[in-house]
Amino acid sequence: MPNPLVYYFGGGQADGGREDKALLGGKGANLAEMTRIGIPVPPGFTITTEVCNLFLRDGAYPRGLEDAVHAALRRLEADTGKTFGGDDPLLLSVRSGAVVSMPGMMDTILNLGLNDATAEALARQSGNPRFAYDSYRRFVQMYGDVVLGVDAKAFEARLAAKKRARGAALDTELDADDLRELVAEFKALVRERTGRPFPDEPETQLWGAIRAVFRSWNTQRAIDYRKVNGIPDNLGTAVNVMAMVYGNMGEDSGTGVAFTRDPSTGEKRLFGEFLVNAQGEDVVAGIRTPLSIEQMAERFPDAYADLLRTQELLERHYRDMQDLEFTVERGRLYLLQTRTGKRTAQAAVRIATEMVDEGLIHEDEAVLRVDPRQLDQLLHPRLDPTAKPTLLARGLPASPGAATGRVVLTPEAAVDWAGRGEAVVLVRSETSPDDFHGMVAAQAIVTCRGGMTSHAAVVARGMGKPCVVGAHDLACDEGAGVLEAGDGVVHEGDWITVDGTSGQVFLGQVPTVAPELSEHFRRLMAWADAARTLGVRANADTPADAAKAREFGAEGIGLCRTEHMFFEGDRITPMREMILASSAEARAAALARLLPMQREDFLGILRAMDGLPVTIRLLDPPLHEFLPRTDAEIAAFARATGIDEEAVRRAVERHREANPMLGHRGCRLGISHPEITEMQVRALFEAAVAAEAEGVRVRPEVMVPLVADVRELTRQKEVIRRVAEEVFRAAGRRIDYLVGTMIELPRAALTAGEIAAEADFFSFGTNDLTQTTLGLSRDDAGSFLPMYIETGIFPDDPFQVLDRPGVGRLIEVGTREGRAARPGLKVGICGEHGGEPRSVAFFHEVGLDYVSCSPFRVPVARLAAAHAALKARKIDEAAAQNEVRRRAGAAAEAPAAVSGD
Amino acid sequence: MPNPLVYYFGGGQADGGREDKALLGGKGANLAEMTRIGIPVPPGFTITTEVCNLFLRDGAYPRGLEDAVHAALRRLEADTGKTFGGDDPLLLSVRSGAVVSMPGMMDTILNLGLNDATAEALARQSGNPRFAYDSYRRFVQMYGDVVLGVDAKAFEARLAAKKRARGAALDTELDADDLRELVAEFKALVRERTGRPFPDEPETQLWGAIRAVFRSWNTQRAIDYRKVNGIPDNLGTAVNVMAMVYGNMGEDSGTGVAFTRDPSTGEKRLFGEFLVNAQGEDVVAGIRTPLSIEQMAERFPDAYADLLRTQELLERHYRDMQDLEFTVERGRLYLLQTRTGKRTAQAAVRIATEMVDEGLIHEDEAVLRVDPRQLDQLLHPRLDPTAKPTLLARGLPASPGAATGRVVLTPEAAVDWAGRGEAVVLVRSETSPDDFHGMVAAQAIVTCRGGMTSHAAVVARGMGKPCVVGAHDLACDEGAGVLEAGDGVVHEGDWITVDGTSGQVFLGQVPTVAPELSEHFRRLMAWADAARTLGVRANADTPADAAKAREFGAEGIGLCRTEHMFFEGDRITPMREMILASSAEARAAALARLLPMQREDFLGILRAMDGLPVTIRLLDPPLHEFLPRTDAEIAAFARATGIDEEAVRRAVERHREANPMLGHRGCRLGISHPEITEMQVRALFEAAVAAEAEGVRVRPEVMVPLVADVRELTRQKEVIRRVAEEVFRAAGRRIDYLVGTMIELPRAALTAGEIAAEADFFSFGTNDLTQTTLGLSRDDAGSFLPMYIETGIFPDDPFQVLDRPGVGRLIEVGTREGRAARPGLKVGICGEHGGEPRSVAFFHEVGLDYVSCSPFRVPVARLAAAHAALKARKIDEAAAQNEVRRRAGAAAEAPAAVSGD
Repeated sequence: MPNPLVYYFGGGQADGGREDKALLGGKGANLAEMTRIGIPVPPGFTITTEVCNLFLRDGAYPRGLEDAVHAALRRLEADTGKTFGGDDPLLLSVRSGAVVSMPGMMDTILNLGLNDATAEALARQSGNPRFAYDSYRRFVQMYGDVVLGVDAKAFEARLAAKKRARGAALDTELDADDLRELVAEFKALVRERTGRPFPDEPETQLWGAIRAVFRSWNTQRAIDYRKVNGIPDNLGTAVNVMAMVYGNMGEDSGTGVAFTRDPSTGEKRLFGEFLVNAQGEDVVAGIRTPLSIEQMAERFPDAYADLLRTQELLERHYRDMQDLEFTVERGRLYLLQTRTGKRTAQAAVRIATEMVDEGLIHEDEAVLRVDPRQLDQLLHPRLDPTAKPTLLARGLPASPGAATGRVVLTPEAAVDWAGRGEAVVLVRSETSPDDFHGMVAAQAIVTCRGGMTSHAAVVARGMGKPCVVGAHDLACDEGAGVLEAGDGVVHEGDWITVDGTSGQVFLGQVPTVAPELSEHFRRLMAWADAARTLGVRANADTPADAAKAREFGAEGIGLCRTEHMFFEGDRITPMREMILASSAEARAAALARLLPMQREDFLGILRAMDGLPVTIRLLDPPLHEFLPRTDAEIAAFARATGIDEEAVRRAVERHREANPMLGHRGCRLGISHPEITEMQVRALFEAAVAAEAEGVRVRPEVMVPLVADVRELTRQKEVIRRVAEEVFRAAGRRIDYLVGTMIELPRAALTAGEIAAEADFFSFGTNDLTQTTLGLSRDDAGSFLPMYIETGIFPDDPFQVLDRPGVGRLIEVGTREGRAARPGLKVGICGEHGGEPRSVAFFHEVGLDYVSCSPFRVPVARLAAAHAALKARKIDEAAAQNEVRRRAGAAAEAPAAVSGD
Repeated sequence: MPNPLVYYFGGGQADGGREDKALLGGKGANLAEMTRIGIPVPPGFTITTEVCNLFLRDGAYPRGLEDAVHAALRRLEADTGKTFGGDDPLLLSVRSGAVVSMPGMMDTILNLGLNDATAEALARQSGNPRFAYDSYRRFVQMYGDVVLGVDAKAFEARLAAKKRARGAALDTELDADDLRELVAEFKALVRERTGRPFPDEPETQLWGAIRAVFRSWNTQRAIDYRKVNGIPDNLGTAVNVMAMVYGNMGEDSGTGVAFTRDPSTGEKRLFGEFLVNAQGEDVVAGIRTPLSIEQMAERFPDAYADLLRTQELLERHYRDMQDLEFTVERGRLYLLQTRTGKRTAQAAVRIATEMVDEGLIHEDEAVLRVDPRQLDQLLHPRLDPTAKPTLLARGLPASPGAATGRVVLTPEAAVDWAGRGEAVVLVRSETSPDDFHGMVAAQAIVTCRGGMTSHAAVVARGMGKPCVVGAHDLACDEGAGVLEAGDGVVHEGDWITVDGTSGQVFLGQVPTVAPELSEHFRRLMAWADAARTLGVRANADTPADAAKAREFGAEGIGLCRTEHMFFEGDRITPMREMILASSAEARAAALARLLPMQREDFLGILRAMDGLPVTIRLLDPPLHEFLPRTDAEIAAFARATGIDEEAVRRAVERHREANPMLGHRGCRLGISHPEITEMQVRALFEAAVAAEAEGVRVRPEVMVPLVADVRELTRQKEVIRRVAEEVFRAAGRRIDYLVGTMIELPRAALTAGEIAAEADFFSFGTNDLTQTTLGLSRDDAGSFLPMYIETGIFPDDPFQVLDRPGVGRLIEVGTREGRAARPGLKVGICGEHGGEPRSVAFFHEVGLDYVSCSPFRVPVARLAAAHAALKARKIDEAAAQNEVRRRAGAAAEAPAAVSGD
C-alpha cells in the first residue's frame, strides 16, 4: 500500500509505475517503472504532484509529509547502507518532475547533504578528496543559485578567478584544496548576498530544496513554457529525491545523455554524448565539449555494453524512442532518467514507420506518433543547391531546415523585430531558458557555443526551427550590437541565412528550394489519409501552385483568389482602366482585355486539377488596392493610358477608404459592378468548356465572397447562371458547376439558414471572420496583440489558432443551421487556420467536409485531420467500453436474465 | 351574403364595412361604412384585393368576376336610374384603394363611360354641354395617360395650345365647342401614339381601367413607397367603382378636401380647401388656387352646414381625425372618401390629448395615436428668433420645423448630394410621386406652386420634414441649375434655410434653437412613461448635454464619451504630448495636466445628473485620432511643445492604421496604457467624492469599451478598483459604483456568459456591433449602401434601424447568456438605435433594462418604449382571450363535466 504523499523506489521494487505519471510526474513514474523492470537506477522516492498543489495553495506542506519523508529517508539509508549526514554520507539529488517533460525549465540540486563534516567523510570514504570537494563546490553553487537566489554569475566569476589564479583551463585541473577554498568563498558569497550563513544541516538543505522545486513551478519561464506548449497550470510538479551516484569520481566515471535512435534523422542507432569525470548538468549546459557515444564505446566498453542492452530493453518496454540520462560511477552504469525522446519531424516520421515494420506499433499509432505541428519542418524550403552563398560560420547541425532573417542578438530584440513583422535569426553565445521567448520569435537560432544536446539544440528541434550550435567563429557583442565573424562584423539587422541541416550560416538572403519528401513520409501520410474523414484542399491561385498542392496531396482547390491574377505583369493596366472608366463602353473595353487573360489562368488551373474540384472566388479586395498610389505611379499610369493625371488623382482619392476591410469589397463589388462578375464568370466557364473539350474533367465551384445577406448571393447567382447559360449555349456543351458562398462575416454565420437556401456550399473564411468577430485588424494588431498573447489575455494568436469560443461558435452555428436548412450542404473552411493542427481538430469535431490551406500546409492538415479522427475514435471506443462496463455492471446487479458464464 | 369578389354599397346598405379593410382596402371599407351610417355617398362597388392578387399572380381575372361586375353594374343602374352607355348615361369613377392609404401613388379615372354618344346625351340630360364636354375631355385625358400610357404632358400641351388659341387663362374659360374639339384632338393623339383608336365602348373602358389599377400596384413608385413605409408587397389593392357625381357642373358645384381638425396644429376646427366648378384631381394637383374652407362657408352655406354635420358624425364614429374628400353637385354634398388624416407631430399630440379630454379615447390609446417616428419633428430646432436672416421667398407653411441645406433642383441631385453627406433642400416647381426619393434624401422641401394639400405638403408632413409650398417668387431653371428669385439667382449648391412653420425661405445658413415643448406634449409623455417598462437614458458628454437630456426626460446617462472632452479647446495639446511621450515621466506629466480638466467635466455632469446614474466610458478612439494631421498642424504642434517636428511626423506615421475601426482602440488602449485608465478613473472618483461632499447624490458606472474577452475586463477592473480605493482612502469617503462593459464586438456577445461574471452591467454598442457583424464601415458604406437599400438588398439602413437577424440575434444571445451567468445583470444599449422606434420595440421585446440615445431622441425613445409595451400588452391580452376561447371551445366539444349555463 503506497504512502499517499511519498512513493518509494529501490531494490527492484517501487510503489509506483509509469501509470502514475499524473501523481509522480514523468520522471518519477519512469524511475519507478525502470526500477520495477530491473534497470539499474539509484534508489529514491518521489513526493507527489498533489503535495505540490497543496503547498502552492496553502503555502505550507500537508500534514504527514514530514513523517513520510523521514520514513523514506530511513529506508533509503537502509538500501544504500549510507547515512544522511553521517560518516558514510548519503548524498541526494533533488529534481523536479512534472507530468509533461519540460526540458531545462525546472531546477535540480545535486550532492545535497554535504557540509564540512560530510565532505571530509566523503573524501575519506571515497579515497578521493578532489571528488568530494568538487561535489561540495557544485552543491554549494547550485543550492546558492537555485534555492537561495544568489546570482549564478557571481559563483562563475569566483570559479573563473580561481582557475586563473591556478593557471587552470578546465574545472578538472583544480585540485581538492582549490575546491575546498572555493567552497569557503562560495559560502562567504552566500552570507554576503543573503545575510545568512549557508545551511549546513542536511535536513534543512533537503526541505529548502523541496520548497525550491515546488516554487519553480511558478517561475515566469515555467509559466511561459506551459503557455507555449498548452500545458495546464494546475498539474504541479513532483519532487524526486534520489541517492547520488557520482560521475565525477575520476577518469573511470562520467555522465551522459543518449537517444535510442538518432533524434535528427530517426536512424536506428544509439546517439548521445558522454562527459568524463563530470556531473549531469555539465552535459546539458554545453560547457565542455563531450565525447561522442562512439568514443564512449571505445573508452568505457563495459558500461557501453550495459547501456546498449538497457536502451534496447527500454525501447521495447516503452515502444517508443527514449531519451536517457545516465551516470557511470567507477565503471558502473546507472540510469537516472528515461523519457520519450524529442525528435525532428524527419526523425519522427522515420521512427514511426520503422517501428511499424519492427512490429512495435500499429499504423494508426504511427500516425499519432508524429505531431502535425512539427511536420512543416519537413516541408520547409532548403537552400537552393545552385546558390553560391558566402559562408559566414560553421557549427553543429542541431535542427534541420533553412531559414533567412535579420540578425538579432538578444531575445528582447527578437521579439521586438518580429513584432514589427521582420523575420529574425537569434544569435547568442549560448541560450538558456531565459531566451525562450526570443527563440519563439525567431526563424532560426545560432549559438557560438554548446553541443547537439545543448539547450538551444533541444529547444530548436522541439520547435522545428533551423538551428546551428557551436559556431565558434562567431562572437556576440550585444553592447555594440554586432556579431564578430573573423575579421568582419555583422550588424544587428543584417540578413543572414541558417542551414540547420548542414550546420552552416551564410551572409545575406540565400534562395531556398522546396524539400523532397521521403518514402517514410509517403507511407505515413497514406496511413493518415486512411484514418481521416476530413477532406483537405489547398488555396492556390496559379497553375504552379495548383500542381504543388496536388503533389502535397490536396484533394481540390478550396480557394482560388482571382484578384491575384490582376496584379501580374502588365495586367494591372487594363484593370485600372476598368476601375477608372468613365463610361460603360470604356469599362467594357477594359474588361474585354482582361477576359482572355483570366480565361488562360483558369484553363491552366483546371488542367492542373483534372478531376478535382476547383473553387473560384470572385473578385474580393476593394478596387483601390489596384490603383496607383504614389505620385510617380499616378503619373506613369496617366502617361501609359492617356488619362488626365489630375483625373487619375481624383479617382484615387475618391476610392480611398477609412476602413477598407469593412468597405466596398467582396460581393459588394460584384453587385455594384455586375460587369466584373460577368467577365470573371465568363472567363471561368469558357475555360471550363475549353478544358472539357481537351478531355480534362472539370468541377468548377463559383464562390461569392463577403456575403452578409442571402439577397446578395441571390443577385450574384442570377448573373452567374445567366452567363453560364450564355457560354453553354454558344459552346453547345454544358458543365456541372456549383455556386456557393464564403461565410466570413458574423451576420452570414448568424443567418446561415437563410443563406443555405441559395448556396450549394459554404466555405468559412476564418481570416476575415476572425477580424470581424474580434474587431481586430490583422494589419494593425501588431501594436498590442503580441502583448495580449504575452500576458495571457489571448491564449494564442487568433489568426494562427482558431478562437473557439467566438469564431468557432459562429462556425458551429453556421454549419448546424446551414445543414438544417439544406441537408447535405457541403461545408469547408479556407482561412489560414485550415493548416493549423488544433484548428483542424476543431473543424473535424464540428463536422466540416474539408479544410483548405496553403499547399505547403496540406500534409500538416492531412495529418492533423487523421489525428482528430483517431482521437475521436479512441474517445468513442472509450465511451463504448464504458457503456459495455456500465451494462455489465447493471447486469451483475440486476437478476440474471440469462444463465451461463 | 356578399359576393366573394365584388362588394356593393348604396341606398343606405353595404355588403362590407370598416372591418373589411384587408379585403376592400381602406377606401372601399370606408365607403361601405359611410353608406351604412347614412352619410351621402354615391353608390358603387368594390372589387376585392384578393382579385388583385389573383390577377397579378395569374395574369387573368378569376372566374366569376365578369358576372359579378355585371350584376353590380345592373344594381348601380337601378339605384341611380341611369344606364351605363345609355341615354341618361351612368358615368363611373374607378379608383384604387389599398389597405394602407398611399396618397398620390395610385391612379384614378373619372367620368368613365363617356363616348361621343353618351357625351351628347349627358349634355342633353344636364342641359350643360360645357359640363359634358369638360367631363369628356377630362376622361379622355386621364384614361389616355393612366390606362393607355400616353405622356400626360402631350395632353397638357394640346390643352395649353387650345387656351392660347382662345385667349383663355383658365380651363373654365373654354367653352363646350372648344372642349369637343379638344376631345377629338386628344383621341387623335391617342391613336397616333398607341396606333389604336380610343376605346369607345364603356365596358371596354371599364375593364381597361380595372386592369390599370391592378397593374399600378407594381409601378416602381408604388413599390418604393411601400418600401419606405414598411408596407408588405402582397396586400394588393382593391378597385372602387362608383357612380359619378359632378363638381364641374357649374358655379354651384365644386370639389374639396377637408380635415376634421387642423393637421398642422391639431386645433379642433374644420380645415380644408374647395375648388369651384372642378373635379377632384384639380385640388390635389394644386393647379388652381382653391377657396379656403371659410370662403366655402360663405359661398355654399347649405353644403358647408352639411359638411360640418358630416365631419362631426365621422369623427365620433371613427374616434380619430378624418381626412375627407367631397363633391358638391349643384349644391348637394357627397362624400367620396374618408380616412384617418395625416398630421404633424404637433397636431398628433394635441389631437390625442384633446380626444382624451373629450372622452373619445383612453390615455393608452392616445399614446398609441402618436407615431414615435414623427415625434422628433417637435424636437427639431426652430430658427433662432434673434437671427436676422435675409428673406428669399415666402410661401405656405406646409410642414413645420426649420432646416438648412444646399439647394438642389432635381430628386437625382438630392440623392447624389445627400449620398456625399451633404444636407440638401429640394426645390421644385411642384412635386409628384416621381420626386419621392429626392424628398427622402432632402432635409426640407420647397415648391413654387401648390397648396397645403398638394403632394409636396402631404408627403413632407408625413415624413416630418420642414416644407414650404407655393413660394411663387421662386422659379426653378433645372437646365441652368439655378433658382430664380426676383432679380437674383441662387445656384445649385448654395445654402438656404427653410422655416416650415412660418412658410419662409431664407438665404444662407440661419442659426436655429431648440423647441419648447407644449403642455399637450408633457401630458402625453407622462402617459407614455406610465405605460412603458423600458428605461430611457441619454448619451451626453457635457454638463449642458446632460441638462438637456434630463429636461427631455432621460433617467440617467447611458453613455458619456470621455474622449470628446479631449478635443475641446487647448486640451488637445497635453493629450498629444501624452500620446507622443517618449518617457514614463513625460507621459505622467501630460496626464497630470489632463486630470483636473477631466475631473471638472465629470463634476459638472454628476451635478447635472444628481440622483441619476451616469455611465462613463473609458477612452475609446485610436490615439491617432488625436494627433495632428496636416503638415501645418504638425508644424504648429511642434512649435507649441518644442518637440522636434520630424519626431512628431514619425510618431504620427507610426500611429497610422490600415483599419482604425478594428485597431488599437477601446480597452486595448487602457490595457497597453493603464496610466490613461488610471487618470480617467481617478478624475471620475475624485469628482464623485467632491460632488458627494457638496450634497450631490452620485451613481457612477464605469464602462470598459470594446471588450472581446473577459480577461480584458478583468485587467481593466483591477486598475479601476485599485484607483477607486486610493481615492476613497485619501478622501475618507466611499462611493458606490459599478463596473461594466460595452458589448460591441460579436465575440463579446458570443462569450457574454463569461464576461457577465466580471461585469455589473452590459451596454450593447450597436453602432460598432453593426459595423463588425455586417463587416460594414459606416464611413465607407456610402459608395454602395444607398444602392443596397434602394434595390431592396437591405430593407433599411442597418445603422438607423437595428438589423434583427444579425445584430439583434447577438443582442438576444448576449442578454440571455449574460443573465443566465449573472441573474439580474443590468443590460442596456447605447448605440444610435436607442432612439429609433422599431429598434426600441426590439429592445423592449428582448427585455433590456434601458436604451440610451441622443438627448433630442429621448422623447422618441420614451414614446416608442410605451408603444412597445402597450402593443405587447395588447398581444398578451389577445393571447389570453384566445386561450379563453380555446378552452371554451374545448369545453363545448367535450362532454359537459359541469352542468348549468
